[in-house]
Amino acid sequence: MTVKRETSGEEKLIERFFKPLAIHPGALNLSDDAAYLSPPPGHDLVLTTDSTVAGVHFFEDDPPETIAKKALRVNLSDLAAKGAEPIGALLAISLPGNFDEGWIANFARGLGEDCIAFSCPLFGGDTTKTPGPLSISITAIGKVPSGKMIKRSGAKPGDLVVVSGTIGDAALALELKKRLLSGGLGTLNKPQAAELTRRYRIPEPRLALVAALRAHANAAMDVSDGLVGDLGKLAAVSGVRAEIDTAKLPLSNPAHDAIAAEPALLSVAITGGDDYEVLAAIPEARFAAFAEAAGAAGVPVTTIGRFSTGEDVSVLGPGGQELSFENASFSHF
Amino acid sequence: MTVKRETSGEEKLIERFFKPLAIHPGALNLSDDAAYLSPPPGHDLVLTTDSTVAGVHFFEDDPPETIAKKALRVNLSDLAAKGAEPIGALLAISLPGNFDEGWIANFARGLGEDCIAFSCPLFGGDTTKTPGPLSISITAIGKVPSGKMIKRSGAKPGDLVVVSGTIGDAALALELKKRLLSGGLGTLNKPQAAELTRRYRIPEPRLALVAALRAHANAAMDVSDGLVGDLGKLAAVSGVRAEIDTAKLPLSNPAHDAIAAEPALLSVAITGGDDYEVLAAIPEARFAAFAEAAGAAGVPVTTIGRFSTGEDVSVLGPGGQELSFENASFSHF
Repeated sequence: MTVKRETSGEEKLIERFFKPLAIHPGALNLSDDAAYLSPPPGHDLVLTTDSTVAGVHFFEDDPPETIAKKALRVNLSDLAAKGAEPIGALLAISLPGNFDEGWIANFARGLGEDCIAFSCPLFGGDTTKTPGPLSISITAIGKVPSGKMIKRSGAKPGDLVVVSGTIGDAALALELKKRLLSGGLGTLNKPQAAELTRRYRIPEPRLALVAALRAHANAAMDVSDGLVGDLGKLAAVSGVRAEIDTAKLPLSNPAHDAIAAEPALLSVAITGGDDYEVLAAIPEARFAAFAEAAGAAGVPVTTIGRFSTGEDVSVLGPGGQELSFENASFSHF
Repeated sequence: MTVKRETSGEEKLIERFFKPLAIHPGALNLSDDAAYLSPPPGHDLVLTTDSTVAGVHFFEDDPPETIAKKALRVNLSDLAAKGAEPIGALLAISLPGNFDEGWIANFARGLGEDCIAFSCPLFGGDTTKTPGPLSISITAIGKVPSGKMIKRSGAKPGDLVVVSGTIGDAALALELKKRLLSGGLGTLNKPQAAELTRRYRIPEPRLALVAALRAHANAAMDVSDGLVGDLGKLAAVSGVRAEIDTAKLPLSNPAHDAIAAEPALLSVAITGGDDYEVLAAIPEARFAAFAEAAGAAGVPVTTIGRFSTGEDVSVLGPGGQELSFENASFSHF
């Protein structure tokens, strides 16, 4: 008897839900062991990988669409901060036994929307079962003109400390979730709370800024582990000191209201992480041009301080006093 | 007060154990958000990602060195089957709470040995905690001369079905482990059992074959989910039929003895998976040259059948009868 070829459950899953996302010709419709990529001439590739795990980076009961989007976007955020445009991504997903097809369909739909929105098709992937929580590892590949990747290490004394968007929303969303039983955050109304939650679940990778960053930034990184700690990393690898003034911190309306009602939340906002905004060192003479380019790209940018000679980070509080922190940034260990 | 910059536990872990593996200049000593890669001119890149999860792909109490090696090698095996030489890899590792530094040190040592042995430095990575089992996702990047990646889809009627190395060792190692309390496999002695276990824990990526494969193969893939099922995938995407004769199957000494003592184990050997050998379609006129090149590279290769017009896979048993299988290959779902 001949072994009649039957398509396995794993193949069906890939065929049905992930193949439509693999529109790059090198992805070979996900029907091969690997993908190929003919590198764009005159460019370097930029490579980054980030995992998101249920119960650590998102909540298991978050909508599958937002879980997918966050898993991709935290990687795209790294590309954006490096001045790189996405080329594609590889997805490794470990599914617990209790997943259902409806969940996967919604996950793939969310991922597919972002693959299109950010021109980042799926190059390949791996689907396995796990006895543990849902885990997603994505590797994103981007491109920059040769030699033009923006590093963390280029900040110079005198450069301005600049951030995109608003800081603290995701960390405040987590704090809000923790306090759900004890009355929430200050007097935030429902739309304000929803806005914070949206920022936690669906970060906005600042790919619109890549041209402006490549044209003007001496150094950049994305803020994922908390502003103060991440600024410390950038300053350390650049060999400079950074001073920021929290009075200048760009806050969303709900973050502003939450901190106004409970000033101690400022510390949560600037150390909590999950912002996925760009932190950049911009020479003062270039800032006007950078801000104009960023504005034209639809992304607000704000100067919150300055780099200088020396080391460490100084954080000026709202009353002009210097602040200190027990944990300046998030660390898994 | 200034925020004195303190290196986090996560940074220390990366600094101490993984930075020494990141010898590619584009890895920036793992001190940035991303790595850059100036693509080798005249080449395509080959991209693959595979996860390994404790309790699924390896045993939690396997030696950390072999866990690391297997996690990398299953990816290198994909590159080898595509005719690609490694350039580098990205590592995303999720560690349960109970890991200790000694474990990590041994894991990194094993990984480092393979990074050197296979010229595959670490480009970057991500280290997170997980409430679940140890999970490792690796993305490997390789290169082939432009347009020369060997696909699954090129097998032609008349091509020989060729495999590298020996088939079934890892699947028999798993069977052996299952039966530990009931007396093991037939009359295998301790060194034989150890040899099977070694093949399960540390597969051999057939990178030594890449030049020979590029010169002679019409199609190739690596055998990870079982020979019969994987051959079915290759035949289906190539639009051909495959016939193999198990009497020609290359078996290791312990696999040979185990199957001789218990003929039903043949089915385990050819459907169980985890072989990480290369399965290739070689035109008959090229086989002598292919085998000579493979021999010169130190890798035995064996013809086990032939592709023909039609579809499905036919497996001839030792007595000349056709075999059938309940599950021709491993699928997670």
